[in-house]
Amino acid sequence: MHVESRRGSVVESRHRLHIAVVDGEGRLVAHAGDPDLVTFWRSAAKPFQALPLVADGVADRFGLKREDLALACASHSSEPGQVALVREFLQRIGCTERELLCGPHRPLSEAVARDYEMRGVRLTAVYSNCSGKHTGMLALAKHHDWPTQFYTRIEHPVQQRCLAEVSRWTDVPAERIGVAVDGCGVACFAIPLRSMAWAYARLAIADFGLRIAELQGKVVALHDAHTDNPQSAIGNPQSRVVEAMLRHPELVAGSGRPCTELMRAHPGRVIAKVGAEGVYSALLVREGLGVALKVEDGHSVASALALAAVLAELGLKPQPPSLVARPTTNSRGDVVGEMRVNGGLLQ
Amino acid sequence: MHVESRRGSVVESRHRLHIAVVDGEGRLVAHAGDPDLVTFWRSAAKPFQALPLVADGVADRFGLKREDLALACASHSSEPGQVALVREFLQRIGCTERELLCGPHRPLSEAVARDYEMRGVRLTAVYSNCSGKHTGMLALAKHHDWPTQFYTRIEHPVQQRCLAEVSRWTDVPAERIGVAVDGCGVACFAIPLRSMAWAYARLAIADFGLRIAELQGKVVALHDAHTDNPQSAIGNPQSRVVEAMLRHPELVAGSGRPCTELMRAHPGRVIAKVGAEGVYSALLVREGLGVALKVEDGHSVASALALAAVLAELGLKPQPPSLVARPTTNSRGDVVGEMRVNGGLLQ
Repeated sequence: MHVESRRGSVVESRHRLHIAVVDGEGRLVAHAGDPDLVTFWRSAAKPFQALPLVADGVADRFGLKREDLALACASHSSEPGQVALVREFLQRIGCTERELLCGPHRPLSEAVARDYEMRGVRLTAVYSNCSGKHTGMLALAKHHDWPTQFYTRIEHPVQQRCLAEVSRWTDVPAERIGVAVDGCGVACFAIPLRSMAWAYARLAIADFGLRIAELQGKVVALHDAHTDNPQSAIGNPQSRVVEAMLRHPELVAGSGRPCTELMRAHPGRVIAKVGAEGVYSALLVREGLGVALKVEDGHSVASALALAAVLAELGLKPQPPSLVARPTTNSRGDVVGEMRVNGGLLQ
Repeated sequence: MHVESRRGSVVESRHRLHIAVVDGEGRLVAHAGDPDLVTFWRSAAKPFQALPLVADGVADRFGLKREDLALACASHSSEPGQVALVREFLQRIGCTERELLCGPHRPLSEAVARDYEMRGVRLTAVYSNCSGKHTGMLALAKHHDWPTQFYTRIEHPVQQRCLAEVSRWTDVPAERIGVAVDGCGVACFAIPLRSMAWAYARLAIADFGLRIAELQGKVVALHDAHTDNPQSAIGNPQSRVVEAMLRHPELVAGSGRPCTELMRAHPGRVIAKVGAEGVYSALLVREGLGVALKVEDGHSVASALALAAVLAELGLKPQPPSLVARPTTNSRGDVVGEMRVNGGLLQ
């Protein structure tokens, strides 16, 4: 299974794929390429970086809304409405834009980027696609009385808390998780695709604590880790995060962007979350399956086409036409070829 | 041999390479990946699309300068000086900008693109990186009394003449060359990397006609094709094209761009010509070796790093530091990783 870029009738470029589809018990139910490839989760880890907000009682303490949680999980398009909501989120936790440490960048939506260029809008940190995640991290620091300064560094308790959460859901010991600096400046985590997919599958388990208690062997340790956390007693943090994303696909990415289109095509059925450098993760809610994929070379359009093809193969049909094939045009505007997935998953 | 993109100490993405290094007799002297991979030559074919200008007597007829020939071979940066030279070239052949059929696009040089944005320069066809090639094609049409309209179409005699030239140098029969539409609207050609590399190697042969007569078997047909062309009697068209490029590396691409930097690092020793979608070709003049490479996924930065590594391995050392490793920075301007070639050629 790979993504092909054809020019006329000839394949011009090829994007190799590595994919893991995993169920709630961690079984690999389908794959392509190397499902054990270790790579950075990048922004596809955001739901797990947002989970401490619910698990630790931050959301209840500050009265966070579903929109706030959705934005904490988002790589948003910097749309005016999205930026306004992040500003409200900042207000709710008593922080200011100046405390955000995410670097500014061109909006991920080309339409939004052009609009801001035309209007001469100055792109500050709150316009970063990661500003919701960063606001969540500030909230976590405030709640625990940790300093809000330098919250992006791996040694800061905010990042250590996120690392512990990622470790718990992926079942990868924290000391075996590779750490580097993400595009926005916070720590990012390198883990096997199979473990990423398992983490997403587990989001569908109504009570992770109860369910894993039924399992044997090594995952009992996870159960202990879970119940060691006093906030787990309040119930089911993951379902609040999942619900926030399912109810607000327009905040998870933005108008016309793949995550939003994939989720809108099958409302309530799927969470799709992009990461930079060709990473994607997804949860098929009803099936309880987690998906993690990496385009070997990091191509982002290829990753969206690949995820749409995987979701279709797993039963979510039809997928949006713009994610089945992507025409390539030249400088004269003529269609000269297309990108499309070739092949399927191995069972 | 591949190009790696590391984030911190972990490889995040990988770009596979297919490379052929071929001598003047067509022997594969080194390779990586699949040297017989068929892909589009894109703009790396330009020297062979420019050759008819000399071979058919167009250059002498219109008094073309070395700069004109260099621009006909170029993917230039749309620098003001380059655009002015293309305008002079157009004047010399009695054509106007309106006859150019290349579509406009953002200049390949980011610095030039930003400068034009700041100054509100309207980007017309003459600003296309391919405007020198297109002007050459108009000149070819005028010289042969072919219509200048629709000169980009594969059925037009200009494109048929270019196809014949590409076929002659690559030793691939025209009917086996895949044809599609390039980024600028003209026909582009799909051929094996090994054949592209051979064509570049042959550019160093002082008298292609004489030299190939010494060879046995199938290439005798090439000799016949060559001597069938009455203009070949005037001598050595390829050395005029090679000399134009060697003397004007600043026109072949532009300030700071890889082709120009690679050629300036070893003056008179190498021709380097980029193509879109991760293609590169080169001639090592003294060694008489041709190089053709394709980054499987089409990544352009990876292709420049790969070519620099290949040239270094073939003896052209040192290469410009910016083409040995390319740091990656995040939205805060921090260096978070780098791209670099891993491995070497197989003999």
